[in-house]
Amino acid sequence: MSRKMIPNIVVGRLPLYLRTLQRMMQEGRQVTSSQELGERLGISAAQIRKDLSQFGEFGKQGTGYSIDYLTGQLQKILRVDRVWDVLVVGAGDVGHALARYQGFKNRGFHVALVFDFDPKKIGQQIGEFVIQDIATLVPSAKAAGIKIAMLAVPAAQAQEVTNKLIEAGVTEILNYAPINVNVPPGIHVEYNDPVIQLQKMSYHLD
Amino acid sequence: MSRKMIPNIVVGRLPLYLRTLQRMMQEGRQVTSSQELGERLGISAAQIRKDLSQFGEFGKQGTGYSIDYLTGQLQKILRVDRVWDVLVVGAGDVGHALARYQGFKNRGFHVALVFDFDPKKIGQQIGEFVIQDIATLVPSAKAAGIKIAMLAVPAAQAQEVTNKLIEAGVTEILNYAPINVNVPPGIHVEYNDPVIQLQKMSYHLD
Repeated sequence: MSRKMIPNIVVGRLPLYLRTLQRMMQEGRQVTSSQELGERLGISAAQIRKDLSQFGEFGKQGTGYSIDYLTGQLQKILRVDRVWDVLVVGAGDVGHALARYQGFKNRGFHVALVFDFDPKKIGQQIGEFVIQDIATLVPSAKAAGIKIAMLAVPAAQAQEVTNKLIEAGVTEILNYAPINVNVPPGIHVEYNDPVIQLQKMSYHLD
Repeated sequence: MSRKMIPNIVVGRLPLYLRTLQRMMQEGRQVTSSQELGERLGISAAQIRKDLSQFGEFGKQGTGYSIDYLTGQLQKILRVDRVWDVLVVGAGDVGHALARYQGFKNRGFHVALVFDFDPKKIGQQIGEFVIQDIATLVPSAKAAGIKIAMLAVPAAQAQEVTNKLIEAGVTEILNYAPINVNVPPGIHVEYNDPVIQLQKMSYHLD
């Protein structure tokens, strides 16, 4: 099946499979099965087999999956068989945590640039980064060829910064501002808002 | 329809509706429509009407929804017509950002306690909080009647801390550790891992 035809919900499960496989590798494991992956993830083995079969044949009936091979294949499919430079806009607490986040390592991403509006923050250091003036975002991101951004600005600035990111050639935006932004076709936005997740759970409380 | 029968996917959209309605209130708006909500959220108006109809009749044909009324109803449905005390485990960068996050205000949650393993961190202050020893988690959380936790510890400690949280009476866990945890029935876990979201998008890159 062509990459574009595969449903988002299937693509969205692949990173979970990859994360679990990478953990198994850290545990020194070499072979796994759709059953075991399913138990770790709370997803049925049949669903996992069906998802993977959309991209090819990765294991043999009865012998399971080579963890190393399947990891490599999923990295290729998800385009993380390389490292993508990512920019962060907003150097508040969330932007700080993202700029310093150790969890990007070996997973395909590297924070390369951090921007803020605030003259008091511009020029300051976060870990290895010097906070850049957002006025320079478009030329800097263009020059660096950056396609992926994490947005950690207040809700009121999110749309304006999103427009700048698109102007800079960014096509993938992970938005931590608690607001939906409008983007043209071809631009992908994912939302990260802990309150949305907490409210989904508080529904279950009495 | 009984609350328990409503699909998770429907429940998961209600916080998005609530967030958008609260923003409209801040903008001084009084009335909206499923069309307008849909445009802001990239969800069809029909889907929004269908989701809301599972919980009752909130608007009149042709006159739209009272933003104030629908906000109040969604807050009741999601149990955020009150404020829930939440605990944070892990006082690293992510735990810091969560403990200081301003976005919980008026949305039903309040960070009440922060815990860590590290003797160097225990007793230190983050904003208004003194970091507590994780050894005291179970009695402290029980005494405070806390039901909701945010987990921001390294992956290797996530299962052990999850077990402690459950022992303490916590039933809703927002897990920032990049690993799936096993929980018994009746315990809900949501996962927040930016890499999972970034990989879902890098799939689209060449």
